[in-house]
Amino acid sequence: MDYQSIVTFVMEMAGSVAFAASGAMVGVERNMDIFGVSVLGVATAVGGGMIRDIVLGIIPPAVFTNPVYALVSVLASCIVFFIFYFKRELLQGHRRETYDKIMLAMDSVGLGIFTVVGVNTGIRQGYMDNVFLLVFLGTITGVGGGLLRDMMASVPPYIFVKHIYACASIIGAVVCVYMNRFVGNVQAMVVSSIVVVLIRYLAAHYRWNLPRLSPHE
Amino acid sequence: MDYQSIVTFVMEMAGSVAFAASGAMVGVERNMDIFGVSVLGVATAVGGGMIRDIVLGIIPPAVFTNPVYALVSVLASCIVFFIFYFKRELLQGHRRETYDKIMLAMDSVGLGIFTVVGVNTGIRQGYMDNVFLLVFLGTITGVGGGLLRDMMASVPPYIFVKHIYACASIIGAVVCVYMNRFVGNVQAMVVSSIVVVLIRYLAAHYRWNLPRLSPHE
Amino acid sequence: MDYQSIVTFVMEMAGSVAFAASGAMVGVERNMDIFGVSVLGVATAVGGGMIRDIVLGIIPPAVFTNPVYALVSVLASCIVFFIFYFKRELLQGHRRETYDKIMLAMDSVGLGIFTVVGVNTGIRQGYMDNVFLLVFLGTITGVGGGLLRDMMASVPPYIFVKHIYACASIIGAVVCVYMNRFVGNVQAMVVSSIVVVLIRYLAAHYRWNLPRLSPHE
Repeated sequence: MDYQSIVTFVMEMAGSVAFAASGAMVGVERNMDIFGVSVLGVATAVGGGMIRDIVLGIIPPAVFTNPVYALVSVLASCIVFFIFYFKRELLQGHRRETYDKIMLAMDSVGLGIFTVVGVNTGIRQGYMDNVFLLVFLGTITGVGGGLLRDMMASVPPYIFVKHIYACASIIGAVVCVYMNRFVGNVQAMVVSSIVVVLIRYLAAHYRWNLPRLSPHE
Repeated sequence: MDYQSIVTFVMEMAGSVAFAASGAMVGVERNMDIFGVSVLGVATAVGGGMIRDIVLGIIPPAVFTNPVYALVSVLASCIVFFIFYFKRELLQGHRRETYDKIMLAMDSVGLGIFTVVGVNTGIRQGYMDNVFLLVFLGTITGVGGGLLRDMMASVPPYIFVKHIYACASIIGAVVCVYMNRFVGNVQAMVVSSIVVVLIRYLAAHYRWNLPRLSPHE
Repeated sequence: MDYQSIVTFVMEMAGSVAFAASGAMVGVERNMDIFGVSVLGVATAVGGGMIRDIVLGIIPPAVFTNPVYALVSVLASCIVFFIFYFKRELLQGHRRETYDKIMLAMDSVGLGIFTVVGVNTGIRQGYMDNVFLLVFLGTITGVGGGLLRDMMASVPPYIFVKHIYACASIIGAVVCVYMNRFVGNVQAMVVSSIVVVLIRYLAAHYRWNLPRLSPHE
């Protein structure tokens, strides 16, 4: 297992855990049972990648030929469930803030990592020159899981109501595509995922917004 | 047409009718017109299998190469529509209970049959050894239609709010996978679909629940 | 580029713009930011075709190998956004009627054109004899985008609540399939898309309805 595969593996692992946790937290907040929580966690973690693989014609999708990420996601979801099950006060009062902070962090990390993972999958499939496709793959892998999570939990899709979100993913994907042409693949992945997290985080922190019709949100 | 194909055909037929009826009933309850009702019925009946075939790379999905199930589903949906159209009192008062009972039965039968059909399709495609994939195929085929139905009718997905639901499907899928290794394929299908229906039914009847944060549902 | 490809190109272009505009208008109405508006616009314009290509095993979907339609959709969406951004009164009072009229027109044109485009793609893939598949392809290409739009914007899917909608698409698809056998391909496309728009428009104008349980809508 060469250096690059190790980095990819570690990143995918981290991304899966982060997204699974975000999905599980939404499920817990929506008062779902442990099964629903796990499903939301897994769907959030592997959903984007599955859509990507189907679009790329990777049959069956990687998540099945290599189920470790799915299993880790289930594990992470259950852990999240039991943390809140035994400490439900975490969902109330001022603690609420902590909840939102963790949720934001998890969601940002997942978004950043999966965006570059998506771009990378496209490159490995030989679509290096189809920039539009690569960016789409990065974005769908990055935002797909969260979109699925929100649609399944029937909460208004985060991506449409919250601050510059998919934009961060798109910018990161573009950065990743072009860095791949000039620097090594690993550097491209690490740097551009950091770019996504940074944009996403700053956008949320400073409440950056894109123009919209009425000011109130 | 050998013994096994006949059993499979009969089961798929029964499952399609049951799921189509459940979809049509949701449509009627949501006051959709006959077209919406038929679409919901068909989507519920063939939706799960279509997702399964796309994941497996069966192109075009079986539902098109062999449209009999879709046509039967449309027929069943229209029948359901007209039953309620001429007897709309079935939706009110104490009759309501009967409605819920039938809905539960239809949904359980469809869930049980399609779960094993999904597992079977995976086995026929040669993924006998990828237990994780087989269980996913069984579950997505079993719950996919109902999930699509609820998302299209924008009712809170049954699978997330109601009693142990997809769990029954997963357990049945696991049973089916392992029985296939020891007993005949037909026995495996029949037994494990009964297992699903049983779990699903008992869960609903005795209000079994998985742990969740707050008791009220 | 022969005569037929030109007609197809012009029609797809017009359909993309029309559907993108309808998607963008929904986004604007839902008070999304410019990004959400663009995503809704693009999803509405290319969503149906993407589902169609995946069902047909066209990998990667045409929208990526030929991104011009997606780019045009983004452009159209942004233009719509800024029109409303600087003239938000268009959304209020009696002007509202104009909004609805334009929305209806855009949606009808998109529906008509994409229905025949879908049928055509199926024919070009060699499924001329599978009428059921061709009609499905036409309908999913025609209504898929709008369905995606409504699900993403979490408004009750137009297709289920509004007047004879997918029906128009299905009828048009059937007309297109059979005309292809007797007259030229181009004539079939033009005529049957007009058929769809006509049915759709008359249905909305004269409030045609299919039977449903309770009269109020």
